Amino acid sequence: MIAGDLEHLIQLLARLPGLGPRSARRAVLHLMKKREALMLPLAEAMARAAESIAICSNCGNLDTVDPCGICQDPKREHRLLCVVEEVADLWALERSGAFKGRYHVLGGTLSAIDGRGPEQLNLARLAARAAEDDVEEVILALSATVDGQTTSHYISDRLADSGVKLSRLAHGVPVGGELDYLDDGTLTAALKARRPA
Amino acid sequence: MIAGDLEHLIQLLARLPGLGPRSARRAVLHLMKKREALMLPLAEAMARAAESIAICSNCGNLDTVDPCGICQDPKREHRLLCVVEEVADLWALERSGAFKGRYHVLGGTLSAIDGRGPEQLNLARLAARAAEDDVEEVILALSATVDGQTTSHYISDRLADSGVKLSRLAHGVPVGGELDYLDDGTLTAALKARRPA
Repeated sequence: MIAGDLEHLIQLLARLPGLGPRSARRAVLHLMKKREALMLPLAEAMARAAESIAICSNCGNLDTVDPCGICQDPKREHRLLCVVEEVADLWALERSGAFKGRYHVLGGTLSAIDGRGPEQLNLARLAARAAEDDVEEVILALSATVDGQTTSHYISDRLADSGVKLSRLAHGVPVGGELDYLDDGTLTAALKARRPA
Repeated sequence: MIAGDLEHLIQLLARLPGLGPRSARRAVLHLMKKREALMLPLAEAMARAAESIAICSNCGNLDTVDPCGICQDPKREHRLLCVVEEVADLWALERSGAFKGRYHVLGGTLSAIDGRGPEQLNLARLAARAAEDDVEEVILALSATVDGQTTSHYISDRLADSGVKLSRLAHGVPVGGELDYLDDGTLTAALKARRPA
């Protein structure tokens, strides 16, 4: 007996990651209570973003312009290219403010289980960019998972002849992390990579 | 460096119950990947629902018509009126299929902490409906919380002179529930209300 329009909205919302039918129903009732303040602005923002946001043909980032703001920014260090899996990882690095170079978004990792091979990733463009004259170093900032590391190895192999320097993120104790809660692999890596105090 | 349109969308999505900034970012990236299949339909469904759905002036339900489908349905038993806190509770009862009467949505409970008094709830209309000739029984289906029970008592007092029969949901062991995990209050209530086997 839920009105069709509401039922349809609930079903669509329930397809978002992190929401199920139950939380989608809650969200819809919340929206109905804040129709002017939230529901209409959200519908508009969604339609506008769907219209205005494009994938950067150079790096795979999302932006209103193509090439994206980062690719176009002359203040970015062109000699550094940071390879990430997803746009979410690019955002995480941007929030940290620790990286001033440019990015390359793969769109995932190689995965035997999910059947993702090299041709599904944005790799051809990466090889072309790594071969550009001003790129000196490619930083592989992929997840420390089996698939992420497999992908790192694959890219290392593929770019081996390009003459570009390859690096990866350091493994170690997360800042704020307690030793007691760390897994053996991280502890071993942190110990091996120990530095003068 | 997130494009303004995306940032705005993330901020709005993060205001939905159950979503925070992190899950809103995930949801937006998911939407960007399913632009045609999910993002545009969702924006449309949201705008349409905001336009088409109204609050039933009789019972407080949400529907495209006013009075709502349930209030208009001649097959519903007019002698039974079920009082619930929110539309979500009405939906839950409808899903159970156990109730064939009509509803009255209060829009919350009385709450000393949140400063909600009787005038904030849909109570005047309830008194008028309970006084209608064909209503024989008002079922108070409010939460078994302190606020819910306070509200039940308040309504019982207020409708005491109307001559209508008042009832509440039974307390007891939830179906599928294990005794070991039940709180003392529920066990006590279930024991008191025990029935011949």
